[in-house]
Amino acid sequence: MDKADKIQINRLKVKILGIDSQYEHIIFMRQDCHLCRSEGYEALTRVRVSSSKGSIVATLNVIKSEIIAREQVSLSEGGIEALQLKDGDEVEITHLSPIDSLGLVRAKIYGKELIYDDYYAIINDIVKGNYSTVHLTSFVTVCAWHNLSIAEISALTRAMIDTGETISWDSKIIFDKHCIGGIPANRTTPIVVSIAAAYGLTIPKTSSKAITSPAGTADVMDVFTNCNMTIKKIKEVVSKEGACLAWGGSVKLSPADDTLIRIERSIDIDSKSQMLASVISKKKAAGSTHVLIDIPFGPTAKVRSQAEALHLKEMFGVIGSELGLKIKVLLTDGNQPIGNGIGPVLEAMDVLAVLKNEPKAPIDLKKKSLMLAAELIVLSGKASSENALKIAEEILSSGKAYEKFKAICQAQGKYEEPIKFAPYKIDIKADHTGIISEIDNRKLAKVAKLAGAPSDANAGIYLHVHLNDIVEKKKLLYTVYAKSLGQLKYALEYADQQDQIIKIQGYGESVD
Amino acid sequence: MDKADKIQINRLKVKILGIDSQYEHIIFMRQDCHLCRSEGYEALTRVRVSSSKGSIVATLNVIKSEIIAREQVSLSEGGIEALQLKDGDEVEITHLSPIDSLGLVRAKIYGKELIYDDYYAIINDIVKGNYSTVHLTSFVTVCAWHNLSIAEISALTRAMIDTGETISWDSKIIFDKHCIGGIPANRTTPIVVSIAAAYGLTIPKTSSKAITSPAGTADVMDVFTNCNMTIKKIKEVVSKEGACLAWGGSVKLSPADDTLIRIERSIDIDSKSQMLASVISKKKAAGSTHVLIDIPFGPTAKVRSQAEALHLKEMFGVIGSELGLKIKVLLTDGNQPIGNGIGPVLEAMDVLAVLKNEPKAPIDLKKKSLMLAAELIVLSGKASSENALKIAEEILSSGKAYEKFKAICQAQGKYEEPIKFAPYKIDIKADHTGIISEIDNRKLAKVAKLAGAPSDANAGIYLHVHLNDIVEKKKLLYTVYAKSLGQLKYALEYADQQDQIIKIQGYGESVD
Repeated sequence: MDKADKIQINRLKVKILGIDSQYEHIIFMRQDCHLCRSEGYEALTRVRVSSSKGSIVATLNVIKSEIIAREQVSLSEGGIEALQLKDGDEVEITHLSPIDSLGLVRAKIYGKELIYDDYYAIINDIVKGNYSTVHLTSFVTVCAWHNLSIAEISALTRAMIDTGETISWDSKIIFDKHCIGGIPANRTTPIVVSIAAAYGLTIPKTSSKAITSPAGTADVMDVFTNCNMTIKKIKEVVSKEGACLAWGGSVKLSPADDTLIRIERSIDIDSKSQMLASVISKKKAAGSTHVLIDIPFGPTAKVRSQAEALHLKEMFGVIGSELGLKIKVLLTDGNQPIGNGIGPVLEAMDVLAVLKNEPKAPIDLKKKSLMLAAELIVLSGKASSENALKIAEEILSSGKAYEKFKAICQAQGKYEEPIKFAPYKIDIKADHTGIISEIDNRKLAKVAKLAGAPSDANAGIYLHVHLNDIVEKKKLLYTVYAKSLGQLKYALEYADQQDQIIKIQGYGESVD
Repeated sequence: MDKADKIQINRLKVKILGIDSQYEHIIFMRQDCHLCRSEGYEALTRVRVSSSKGSIVATLNVIKSEIIAREQVSLSEGGIEALQLKDGDEVEITHLSPIDSLGLVRAKIYGKELIYDDYYAIINDIVKGNYSTVHLTSFVTVCAWHNLSIAEISALTRAMIDTGETISWDSKIIFDKHCIGGIPANRTTPIVVSIAAAYGLTIPKTSSKAITSPAGTADVMDVFTNCNMTIKKIKEVVSKEGACLAWGGSVKLSPADDTLIRIERSIDIDSKSQMLASVISKKKAAGSTHVLIDIPFGPTAKVRSQAEALHLKEMFGVIGSELGLKIKVLLTDGNQPIGNGIGPVLEAMDVLAVLKNEPKAPIDLKKKSLMLAAELIVLSGKASSENALKIAEEILSSGKAYEKFKAICQAQGKYEEPIKFAPYKIDIKADHTGIISEIDNRKLAKVAKLAGAPSDANAGIYLHVHLNDIVEKKKLLYTVYAKSLGQLKYALEYADQQDQIIKIQGYGESVD
């Protein structure tokens, strides 16, 4: 069998095709290659692919053309990156041994209560990339019920922390803030962190980039400075300035979370268990001890009702204390965007206007930021509720917050102020006189995204009105900014099709 | 905006890349193409793709190389086929309007009981290809609980029937048989159908090809004749011979089923609700009125215990009668393969030996086939239990069943007898003397598949022993047949690694 042995060696040479399949690694092999034939591999077979740099699990797509040669193999971009491959490198392809933790997912499907070790095994396999989209979805779906007990959510959260990096600090008290999202603009974080740090609190903030929204805090901070930092760099910045405004994706805190979130968004299920595990695991892994959580609620926000918001608040308290975190939850107004700009640069302009105490600064963004900063100060135990707001106001109005913000950015590598919006713009005007009675958060976000945000940093929306404003016919409602006429057109087409993104209740018009 | 309008036309030219991604259609577009940029499409965006021949939903994989040009687009093989595309054809790519039925899947996730209209909407979208793998998995997972009521399983079954083709017959009574599977070999169907048809029953049998097993009935029938028939051809054959042995995949009876089954197998969940809906919808859509169901149970079968088999039996009765089917369920021995051959040609040889009353015919396969045929005769009401078995025996031993089998094959287009096994073989022998105490169905099936079955029709296993046989050291246990030395080697390697696929309890050895 010497000859057969030789032919059967499980190694193929890599050809890079540049195909981005996102979180599930795909391996491309010729249908008529010796491995497919001898191993019985067929489309969707899961195999292990190894290089000198490591090993991943990939799903097979079979190639029936000449885009790769018979003795070649290709991987999707994520796989190429994970194995650090270049054209011509060899990889070894082997049968995948059974993934034991899938038995635990099945047990959960059949109603069994899982313990920490079970969740650890599942999350560990997810982090290693051993689960296919089908496996991930099945796990996310079964966690979407009310069928995770408090003990299970805690166990899941701990497993998510223990399968990633963690940061430890010298200070005993580490602050953090988090908004569960769903409201466009609402860019309080840079302001709140600057005030808190200027007051003397230690607040090493990591934030996400947008996945489905027009901007995340990290997208906005990218306008000002470098957010992509190692844990070492984060510690250096925090030790100097008491705070940072880093991109969470640059450090691997609770890495399973990013994968699970993508699946959740694909099915558009709003899993409370996953959200709790996600937020708390990230904070705990970042070494936080005192966390302020902002839950905006409203008809077009992520949380639709006060009852739902109250339930979530209670759960944050319970799971947080299980994990040894001091958590304060605020329920806030989620009926409309906070601030005027939607999109990285437009939001950065709002943040800057507040920090610089400019007259044009959006008052709602300023008020909410001050309120959140005051809550952090109260949480520190150094001031009463009454005094805390005054302290925050003083820090902002004196320019100390602005100075701190610049110092944090400088420590992270640079400080640059945004200067211009995208070149093409169109003004959307009121078609009749009346009072602004509703603003649809989701549809506004969609318009901003169609205009190019966040990948075009200076595209998006500038909002000229807020709820209860009185507008006359032809008065400006909002302006859309885009990099190209084409994108502007798409944003407008979508806006046109909608049944009032901003609803104006005319005088004498009946409320339905 | 005339110029922009011109650039923005959503049409791209097709380049075929020959990538097989199975059931989820993938569209490949350049990251820097004007559509991706202007529409904000990114990896995993779901889009609608239309040609003059129809429209499908596809998931986007973004291309970062030159394998397609900037103004080109490619689709996975399934999409190319569905839209009947060739190189250079134009397709139109548009945003996907929301898939409303996903809201019903979410409602089910949150515990709502769904009605027929809901299941119809879901299954209809699945059949149209509107669900991504994530959506499909979420639906399959939520149906995997004990949380589908009897009414819901009926509604799901009806929806699966109503979204596909159906066959109607002139005869009032149409017979069918079905085995839930899980036992290698066990190829009773061609024998049972031949006896029943020779007796005068109308039994238009459609069968599946293997998905995870070494052979399906359709793979075995492919050895003898043509199984790929239109409904018109099926009716013609049945009107002539009273029976057919067709491939179910050639007609679109309950087409959602095939998609759902693939997802189930990926998570390896054994969903009773889905199995019931799957089997009953296929039978009802095929116009059957009287159905015999074979449920083999045993430690390495699909159904592991008698309790589980009994519960399934009851459910088949209840759902069947809801759908107006007369169902008889038999619980049979699932402790070992039935017959000697495993793999299309090897099983075909067993079938032929029984039909031709050869002395080497496997007695277990003969007995089981006679018993099933007798049950069908009893079900027809034309004979008592006692007489039915004698009738079946007479039809088989007289050669009438063999003649009927050949006639059915001829009516389907041709009749050919299998002649040879795959060229490379190896004998697996007993390493000590004793009694055969256990045979692992799953592991034997895996060895046969590694040897090349079913795609190499004459590869597989010939089993020389059955349970309770006494074997001496070095006596033959089974022979593995493969088309290449490489495949033979893989099958052996796997077999070697297993902890006894066939367990021999030595004399005086204690039972554990």
